[in-house]
Amino acid sequence: MFKNLLLSAIIFCSGLVANDPPSVRATQKWVKKNGHKIIGDFTELLAIPNVALDRQNIRKNAEYISELFQDRGFEMQLLEADGANPIIYGEMKKPGATRTLCFYVHYDGQPVDESKWKHAPFKPVLYSGPMDAGGKPIDLPNKRKKINPEWRLYGRSAGDDKAPIITILNAVDALQASNIGITSNIKLFFEGEEEAGSTNLKVHLSTHRELLDDIDIWLFCDGPMHQSRQPQLVFGVRGVTGMEVTIYGAARSLHSGHYGNWAPVPGQTLSHLIASMKDEEGNVLIDGFYDTVEPLSEFERLELSKIPDVDIGLKNELGLAYTEGGGRSINERLLLPSLTIKGLASGNVGSKARNVIPNSATVALGVRLVKGNEPEDMLDKVEAHIRKEGFHIVYDDPDMATRRKYPKIAKVDRRGSGYIASRTSMNDPYAQEIINATRSFVGDDLILMPSLGGSLPIYLFTDYLKKPVVIVPVANHDNNQHAPNENLRIANLWYGIDLMGVILTMPN
Amino acid sequence: MFKNLLLSAIIFCSGLVANDPPSVRATQKWVKKNGHKIIGDFTELLAIPNVALDRQNIRKNAEYISELFQDRGFEMQLLEADGANPIIYGEMKKPGATRTLCFYVHYDGQPVDESKWKHAPFKPVLYSGPMDAGGKPIDLPNKRKKINPEWRLYGRSAGDDKAPIITILNAVDALQASNIGITSNIKLFFEGEEEAGSTNLKVHLSTHRELLDDIDIWLFCDGPMHQSRQPQLVFGVRGVTGMEVTIYGAARSLHSGHYGNWAPVPGQTLSHLIASMKDEEGNVLIDGFYDTVEPLSEFERLELSKIPDVDIGLKNELGLAYTEGGGRSINERLLLPSLTIKGLASGNVGSKARNVIPNSATVALGVRLVKGNEPEDMLDKVEAHIRKEGFHIVYDDPDMATRRKYPKIAKVDRRGSGYIASRTSMNDPYAQEIINATRSFVGDDLILMPSLGGSLPIYLFTDYLKKPVVIVPVANHDNNQHAPNENLRIANLWYGIDLMGVILTMPN
Repeated sequence: MFKNLLLSAIIFCSGLVANDPPSVRATQKWVKKNGHKIIGDFTELLAIPNVALDRQNIRKNAEYISELFQDRGFEMQLLEADGANPIIYGEMKKPGATRTLCFYVHYDGQPVDESKWKHAPFKPVLYSGPMDAGGKPIDLPNKRKKINPEWRLYGRSAGDDKAPIITILNAVDALQASNIGITSNIKLFFEGEEEAGSTNLKVHLSTHRELLDDIDIWLFCDGPMHQSRQPQLVFGVRGVTGMEVTIYGAARSLHSGHYGNWAPVPGQTLSHLIASMKDEEGNVLIDGFYDTVEPLSEFERLELSKIPDVDIGLKNELGLAYTEGGGRSINERLLLPSLTIKGLASGNVGSKARNVIPNSATVALGVRLVKGNEPEDMLDKVEAHIRKEGFHIVYDDPDMATRRKYPKIAKVDRRGSGYIASRTSMNDPYAQEIINATRSFVGDDLILMPSLGGSLPIYLFTDYLKKPVVIVPVANHDNNQHAPNENLRIANLWYGIDLMGVILTMPN
Repeated sequence: MFKNLLLSAIIFCSGLVANDPPSVRATQKWVKKNGHKIIGDFTELLAIPNVALDRQNIRKNAEYISELFQDRGFEMQLLEADGANPIIYGEMKKPGATRTLCFYVHYDGQPVDESKWKHAPFKPVLYSGPMDAGGKPIDLPNKRKKINPEWRLYGRSAGDDKAPIITILNAVDALQASNIGITSNIKLFFEGEEEAGSTNLKVHLSTHRELLDDIDIWLFCDGPMHQSRQPQLVFGVRGVTGMEVTIYGAARSLHSGHYGNWAPVPGQTLSHLIASMKDEEGNVLIDGFYDTVEPLSEFERLELSKIPDVDIGLKNELGLAYTEGGGRSINERLLLPSLTIKGLASGNVGSKARNVIPNSATVALGVRLVKGNEPEDMLDKVEAHIRKEGFHIVYDDPDMATRRKYPKIAKVDRRGSGYIASRTSMNDPYAQEIINATRSFVGDDLILMPSLGGSLPIYLFTDYLKKPVVIVPVANHDNNQHAPNENLRIANLWYGIDLMGVILTMPN
């Protein structure tokens, strides 16, 4: 229906949209009339500080947001757990509805280093365009001011993750204003410590499970849209694990002159080990590393092939003439488990380098997992590889007897077990409904992304609660998520309101 | 003549030595009568602080030592150079002598961290045995007290390098007391900033070259005896050089989830490069790395084969079940150039490790050189290897155009050019005289070591002045050189006095 969101923004404002689902006419009419108020409301929401450890303000956010939804007819409550920030939980029952949708949002934001922000992070400022592309601060619009969808609102959590709250609220308002009925039972589940590691999420899910058991599909409203600016739905995330491996030389660091060419060099031994783990094209050579990967369906393969190529732009931006995988696209490569080196350390380099043979060398290995990989099983495979390379494996620093016995010793430290990937099948019937509804609105430009490369504990929903999850991003890809000067592009807010309207009115 | 120094010490004290050169009877008689005074004099010498940067005390040392030799009939002067500590220079001419020997000693010592010393480093304390083997502090002996050669005198520079000064002084005294004539012209050249890097040594040598041109052989009185406690003469040291190599990934560190399995991993690329440089037995695979090594003579090979095996003891001490070189002895391995890893760095390990793919990885390579290797030529070979492995070499951080052009980029940083090894041929006629004289005293236990593994700028004597150099160690191997609680075993002092007497009376 449109080539990109820039075009879409022009269309939205000129009112020339045709063949849209009825809800889109309602939401666009609403936005046209109330745009200034929506931006004002968003500004007020962003002005409540929301760092997870700031318990007082977190609760203020929870009560404020709860009230906004209560005003729209949701039955609201705050779900509590010991020492945890509350979950904002809401329900709206629709008689005759054949499904229950639950919107996941997180209302906490990343910690802020104020010194690095142009403006105070919790005093939002509207800009005429991106700050780093010459945008200037402008006043909040009044009723008569024409709103440019390329404006940006700067403030912590503008993109990650308060925007979806505003889009859901206004979609409900717009439908009510146009007397269009919501067609599903709706639940809300807004987390307050996602940016602090979701440490209490599982406790919340298990404590309040009876409230959640009738949910048919979770809509994860988080994360940015595709770099191409095309709308996307995402069906999975990678899991994560890792280990540290330490290789030993002599029991103490040695003079490189008195012992060099005779004493073992831990950095050398470690390099041989690391080199044995991957070929020069970046393929992991560890036995069985790819064996448990669950393949994509034919439908998913087809959708994958339609995703715009971002590799050239990325390589240009990152200064790369080479990527792992022999030229295969990043979208495809992220569907495999990865083995990367987060850190290497032995002795010193630069001005601190001394003429020694250090007594050890350590690598921090990062492992990302895809659907089918179990963290412990993958680490077992790495460990088996190390053993196959001739190392005696220990889990504590070796004593002298051990050192004297084994030519090659590696200490393995599994640093926390990590967690599995999650991926919802695009063939899941509820997922199909979301795909169809979204496509009815955005057309063939819709990107269906099997998985993000990063990791989120979505497995708690897909594997613990055993429900399908679709990630529904709203924020612009350049929203400076987690960084200073976080922002939301207004066109993305409008897109989100339309999209929420469409989802709320999916046919039964 | 004796199996080891312990035995020799017993012999010395029981006066049962037979078939010794006449000088040894003189020095042992001297030691027997004046042992308490020698230890007292040594204690006084060690009490003058001698860290190279402590200019005032350094000069006090120089003047004090100068006077000691003046009293024995040496013509003394302090050789000066701008900003340098003085060289203590002395001459004793012997009519009819066919050779001129020069004793090199350094009278400065390593800096001290007093907090790590058992006693103040410049207040020497006599012990009944090694401190770490239960030795106890004892009073300095009086004339009637029987001296145990296993006593140790603790203080900075006891082993490195004031002991030789005492041994030369007392050998001269002993010979004079027994009316035995010195048979060579003697020169003294005592450096005052060896432990500070000998930065002015070349200036001294070139400024005062006319004083040094008639020297036939330099006796380098420094360093410890062999670990087996057998006496040794050493004919060379390794040279030293090195470089740092940095491998680049993306222009910035990347999220290991969003990019892992697609973005290049600098630690991985660096590991492949390092692994390509050496095989698993520790042999360097860089083309030509061993090509310029000057081989040993037949005589040197033979002497090498007679050196006691220290490998088993060392491996036990250091906790090693493997050494580089497929089991070849350390003595043999130190006669080859070495390539070791002094440092490895990329991102972080341990508690600081983050889920990133770091944007670079660096290795600090240490290279030790043997006779025949030129530092720049060896680094050229390492660089050629890196190029052969497919890297584009830069000498500064690459710009974006360079990054976008070359798949593999390595920055090479030659950190100072280092210096060459030095080795005096054991077949040199003056070296042969020293060997024969020493062997006439210590017998077949004498170890002739072609080279130490460590590096000293002895090339200034062998290659700049073009004179043979023999290293004549006196200190016990466990003298804690460069460390806290430096010490000298009294038996080694007695050995040194005997040896100096033998050398001073070599037949013409």
